Formats: sequence, structure tokens, C-alpha cells
Amino acid sequence: MRIFVVLGHRAATGPDFSLNDLPGSAGRLDILCRCVNTSFFLSHDLRRDTELYLILQDEVTLRFVGSGLRHLNPDERSTAALIQKALAAKGRLRGDEEVESTPGILVTRQGLRKTLKEVQSRVKQLFLLHEEGLPLRKTELVPDVGFILSDHLEFSPREMELMHDLPQLSLGPKALHADHCIIIAHNELDLRCDPARC
Amino acid sequence: MRIFVVLGHRAATGPDFSLNDLPGSAGRLDILCRCVNTSFFLSHDLRRDTELYLILQDEVTLRFVGSGLRHLNPDERSTAALIQKALAAKGRLRGDEEVESTPGILVTRQGLRKTLKEVQSRVKQLFLLHEEGLPLRKTELVPDVGFILSDHLEFSPREMELMHDLPQLSLGPKALHADHCIIIAHNELDLRCDPARC
Repeated sequence: MRIFVVLGHRAATGPDFSLNDLPGSAGRLDILCRCVNTSFFLSHDLRRDTELYLILQDEVTLRFVGSGLRHLNPDERSTAALIQKALAAKGRLRGDEEVESTPGILVTRQGLRKTLKEVQSRVKQLFLLHEEGLPLRKTELVPDVGFILSDHLEFSPREMELMHDLPQLSLGPKALHADHCIIIAHNELDLRCDPARC
Repeated sequence: MRIFVVLGHRAATGPDFSLNDLPGSAGRLDILCRCVNTSFFLSHDLRRDTELYLILQDEVTLRFVGSGLRHLNPDERSTAALIQKALAAKGRLRGDEEVESTPGILVTRQGLRKTLKEVQSRVKQLFLLHEEGLPLRKTELVPDVGFILSDHLEFSPREMELMHDLPQLSLGPKALHADHCIIIAHNELDLRCDPARC
């Protein structure tokens, strides 16, 4: 089980955005769509052992479950359309329930604090990906592992306070986009399973 | 200097496609747009030392030059719009000339054979990324290096014939999308420049 959590600081929390303007009116939803792509897509296959949580403005969380995903395509626009459906389904939520809007995509009204608790109960290691962290390649990893990332904005002081006890990992000397970080983390875990290639 | 070459087997070679349907009418142009993204984008910066060649149906080649790029945004749609402009400029080409359609994006009527020759003269090492190749992490790399990748389709027998003498590299045990491979190659090169993190 691999879990990625991405914080979308300005991402739309309702369905009223244009699929033609994901970077603008949808609040950089393009980045989050690419995180969906890099979390799940292999060449002609999906990573069924992976889940992705997208936390939108600390209000709404979308959970993508690799083992259940259907109708997912690699391009940003069609992924954004699935997110739009999930955000439309949000209107039907009662209290803290989680509903499945399309196969493998679930929506709930919860922010970082509750999502953190949930993810911590599901993995054995949870890391914050941050350019000042320890090198990923020198870190022992277990198979049930989670990584937390931010969109185009830095983690806020409040977020850092909530996550102050998480170990931080860095992937290399350059500051990278969140979707790119997911690829590198996946590749490292893939290679750990196949040491002949390291 | 890092060079990536991506073969788009069905990608549109003219500007008459819809930005709303990159996977369909544009012939999986979405993949090529993501290759542009992963070739150049760093967090709040661009990789100025990188060039990307997109070879469209062995007829048209677009060359993206990191040191000259402007107006490039990370999302697929706006990148596709720049590609559309380049393909519109193709109509004005005479013979084998190369013209700049927008800053840092050049278009020419040439296919794999000629592009290969051009790239080989510009780098010291040129690799084919292929899942059956030797492990990237065990391979000596020089700073002036190129990588050739395919879109969602396998290299054709004719393409393999043209490239039969190129060494093949693999990035890990899973078959990955071309844009994902570019991220891993960049990260490996970044880390080689900063061995403390390996």
C-alpha cells in the first residue's frame, strides 16, 4: 500500500469551474489532475496498490483508490471532469460520511487534521516530502508508506504545525512539482522491490 | 545539455484539432504535452539546460529549447495551444528550414532519421529508454546526454532499425509513460551532480 496526500491550497471545492481553465478558475486544479495521473498510471496499467488523497482548501477531501478506479484516463481534462462529478456529489453528503461519486473516487467533508489521522492509521511510515528533508535514497522504507506533498504553494505555518512530528524526505537537489515527486517516490519503491536494478 | 526526443506516432501534424480533445482528435497529444511539462518544469523555474524534440508521425519535428522558452505553462491545454501555433507556422516553411513559432519553440519538416543525426552530433551519449535496457542507476552518464522515448505505442520495427546501435536503458521494473520516464532521468542526472544525496 502506497498513499500520497496532496494539499490543494486554492483548488475549487465546488463543481462550478470550467474544464477549459483548470489553472485559473479551478485554482490550479491542473496540478492535482497531474498528481492523479502520476499516482496511478503505468504503461497500459494502473497502480492498484496506491491511494491518493487530494485535500482541497482544507475543506473537502477526495480519495482515489487504485484498486477500485474505473473511467480514469491520463489527460488532465478528463480527470478534472471526474473531480467535478465528485464535487457535485459533495452536496449530498451528510455529516462526515464519505460517498463514492464514480468507481474508486470518494468524497468527504474533511480537512488536513482528520485526513492525517486516517492516513497515519493506515501506513507504517508517513513522510513529508520537502526539499530540506533527508535523502530518499538513503532512507529505509517499508512497503506500507505514505507521502505528503503540497501543490504550487508552500505548506502553511498551520499545516507545518499539524505535521511537525513527521520525518521529512527530499528527492534531490532541485525543488520539483508535486506530480513529479510522486513519480520519483514510486520509482524508488519499485526499485526497492527489485534490487538487481539498483 | 540534456536532450529528450519523443516519438508521437499518431500526433496531429497540422493545427486542425480541438484543445478540448487532445487524447482523441489530436492523436494522444496529451502525452506529448506532459513530456513538455516534465522536460522543463521545476518548482517556480524552468530547466534551461534542456531541449526536447517531439517527432510527429515522422513528418514534423518540434524543438523546445529551454534557454529560450517563454509563455510556457505547466498545463496540457496551454502547451497544446503553443503546439497548435507551431503547426500553423509549419505551412510557411520552405524546404528544410526551421522556424521559431513562439519563443523557444521551433518547427521543421523532418522525421526520425534526420533528427537522430542532429541529436547525435549534439550530445556525447544517446540512449534509447526501453524497459528491457540496462539499469540507469548502474550506467555512467556524462553531462551532455540524450534519451529517446516513445509515446503510448511501442517503437516500430523501422524505428528500431534506425536506432539499432543505440544503447538501451531501463529505469525500473515497471513499464512507464514517457513523461514519467523524463522525470526519473532528470532526477538521476540531478543527483549525479550532487552525490551527497545518492
